[in-house]
Amino acid sequence: MHPSRRVTIIDVARHAGVSTTAVSKVMRNAYGASPEMQIKVRAAIEELGYRPSAAARGLRGQTYTIGVMLPEMRNPFFADILDGVTEHLGGTDYQVLMAACCNDEAGEVRITEAMIDRSMDGIILIAPISSRRHLQKVARAVPTVVVGRHGHSPDYDTVTDDDFAGAGLVVDHLVALGHRRIAHIEHAEKNPVRLKEMPNAQRADGYRHAMQAHGLGDYIDIASTTYTQQGGYLGAQQLLARPQRPTAIFAGADIVAMGVLDALTEAGLSAPQDISVAGYDDTMFAAFGPISLTTVDQAGHQMGLNAVRLLLDRVASRGRPTAQIKLSPTLITRRTTAPIP
Amino acid sequence: MHPSRRVTIIDVARHAGVSTTAVSKVMRNAYGASPEMQIKVRAAIEELGYRPSAAARGLRGQTYTIGVMLPEMRNPFFADILDGVTEHLGGTDYQVLMAACCNDEAGEVRITEAMIDRSMDGIILIAPISSRRHLQKVARAVPTVVVGRHGHSPDYDTVTDDDFAGAGLVVDHLVALGHRRIAHIEHAEKNPVRLKEMPNAQRADGYRHAMQAHGLGDYIDIASTTYTQQGGYLGAQQLLARPQRPTAIFAGADIVAMGVLDALTEAGLSAPQDISVAGYDDTMFAAFGPISLTTVDQAGHQMGLNAVRLLLDRVASRGRPTAQIKLSPTLITRRTTAPIP
Repeated sequence: MHPSRRVTIIDVARHAGVSTTAVSKVMRNAYGASPEMQIKVRAAIEELGYRPSAAARGLRGQTYTIGVMLPEMRNPFFADILDGVTEHLGGTDYQVLMAACCNDEAGEVRITEAMIDRSMDGIILIAPISSRRHLQKVARAVPTVVVGRHGHSPDYDTVTDDDFAGAGLVVDHLVALGHRRIAHIEHAEKNPVRLKEMPNAQRADGYRHAMQAHGLGDYIDIASTTYTQQGGYLGAQQLLARPQRPTAIFAGADIVAMGVLDALTEAGLSAPQDISVAGYDDTMFAAFGPISLTTVDQAGHQMGLNAVRLLLDRVASRGRPTAQIKLSPTLITRRTTAPIP
Repeated sequence: MHPSRRVTIIDVARHAGVSTTAVSKVMRNAYGASPEMQIKVRAAIEELGYRPSAAARGLRGQTYTIGVMLPEMRNPFFADILDGVTEHLGGTDYQVLMAACCNDEAGEVRITEAMIDRSMDGIILIAPISSRRHLQKVARAVPTVVVGRHGHSPDYDTVTDDDFAGAGLVVDHLVALGHRRIAHIEHAEKNPVRLKEMPNAQRADGYRHAMQAHGLGDYIDIASTTYTQQGGYLGAQQLLARPQRPTAIFAGADIVAMGVLDALTEAGLSAPQDISVAGYDDTMFAAFGPISLTTVDQAGHQMGLNAVRLLLDRVASRGRPTAQIKLSPTLITRRTTAPIP
């Protein structure tokens, strides 16, 4: 039960035959550490297996910790983004620590404050619903990149998919298959800022716009629930109960499409024989053979890669102008969509 | 771009009209802080919105951070465990920070060291594959609970499912449906300690034992891959290529069953018409209508709840004897298993 004594900076200094200040300088990559001193100190660090306490480093400067806030743990799209983040950090000293949230502003405040309190070097917020004011407050305290939320800010960088265009791709595809009665399941949103900035709102807008462009404005039909499996299930139940039910359902996310397929099965229907179904995200689930869901690839892995690149750049030069990266989505056609019967 | 100045312990002391030592005592719940002083200090903390830096707290004592290491981000069973953990911590000062690993010993060492370096108060390791020696080293540095790995240690608590019995439930069910040619897909394992301790090894053992108990020893047939969707896909391909293919496949985890169903679809087969398929974990995926997978409920939520309860208890009294909690699994019968054709 006795922890072995931890190697300290004093041990390293003694082993290298230099002062602790010199060790500290080398570790901070500060000016005034000669190449010879760097070599001696790095050798001592290596030989003794010295790992400075992150808490102690946090009081001095960097903690080599990147925080990632996820909206939830069950949407496999977020795992794609994380793959991109961790791939880029492989081989560096950075450690990613994640916190999963709650689709709840108070919860996001709690998590972001916890990350600031723990002196993280930078944070990536995935599809946050917080007020713009809170996001800016966070970004002023710690370098921040926001993924999956549109809108410019002088304080943080953004990485998004062109959700408006992506929704258009789905509608175009369904129209080409002969569908006119094409319904959409959106994530309910009333907040005016989020109605401009959230991917879900942009997808609903893109759907409406594309329907109108095809002269199908009269067939616009939106079930407003949530971007969860349960939301898809409830949305599909609403749509199936219409006097004239849709021939195609565009679910705003793959996880929503999963709920739609669940509801169809329960009603004794199937896709695409009875109703065509499309999702958005191209998650592992969509590619799953027995489902084979038509969806939109928004390149989660690329989003993660870009986000962490921007973040490390911002950690290195806090004052630089902000950047907005917008990636182009691609339609992935699979077996859940077919010509109208 | 100017962060607002952070409220410090000095501001709190001035506002409350006490010394900084007194503030510190109240915050640590140390002896010698009178009830009056506690009220004054807590009021000042509240009014000023003081949040002590976690880094500073880390040097003094608690950081109110619980680390959770997950083997990966795509197995939905781990989300069930996390739900149990976060539910229990709701309303407390604790923040859960997760790191996802890699099915790789070196990666687990890196993550656990990162958690120790960041002065986490306690850590929960989910299905770690590290050597016993490394787990004990971690547990001596920080209170630790290991979830999903059998074996006793004087240093850490464990929470497991009775995997041996759970595998038996699946075999019993398939035998009752008339199956004899029942194959299993396991996670390949050669390390002798892990062959005793890992859930995957216990499930394979439980399968072998149950087959023998039913007089089906000659039909034991194991494809040895990994507990991933890809592992299930490859395992099923091996089993489908046998001169006499099995009539039922017991996949060691739901995510493995997902790969099995993928391979069946590709081969133009389906469950249960051609082959019965069962999984393990009862994840959200298993309950998904179009799949409706027979599986074993190992109560991930309960595992998480129990793990964090043990952990907080261990944080409070480090020296206490270790505890081992083993939960009993339940068979959940759905549509992917049926009487032999």
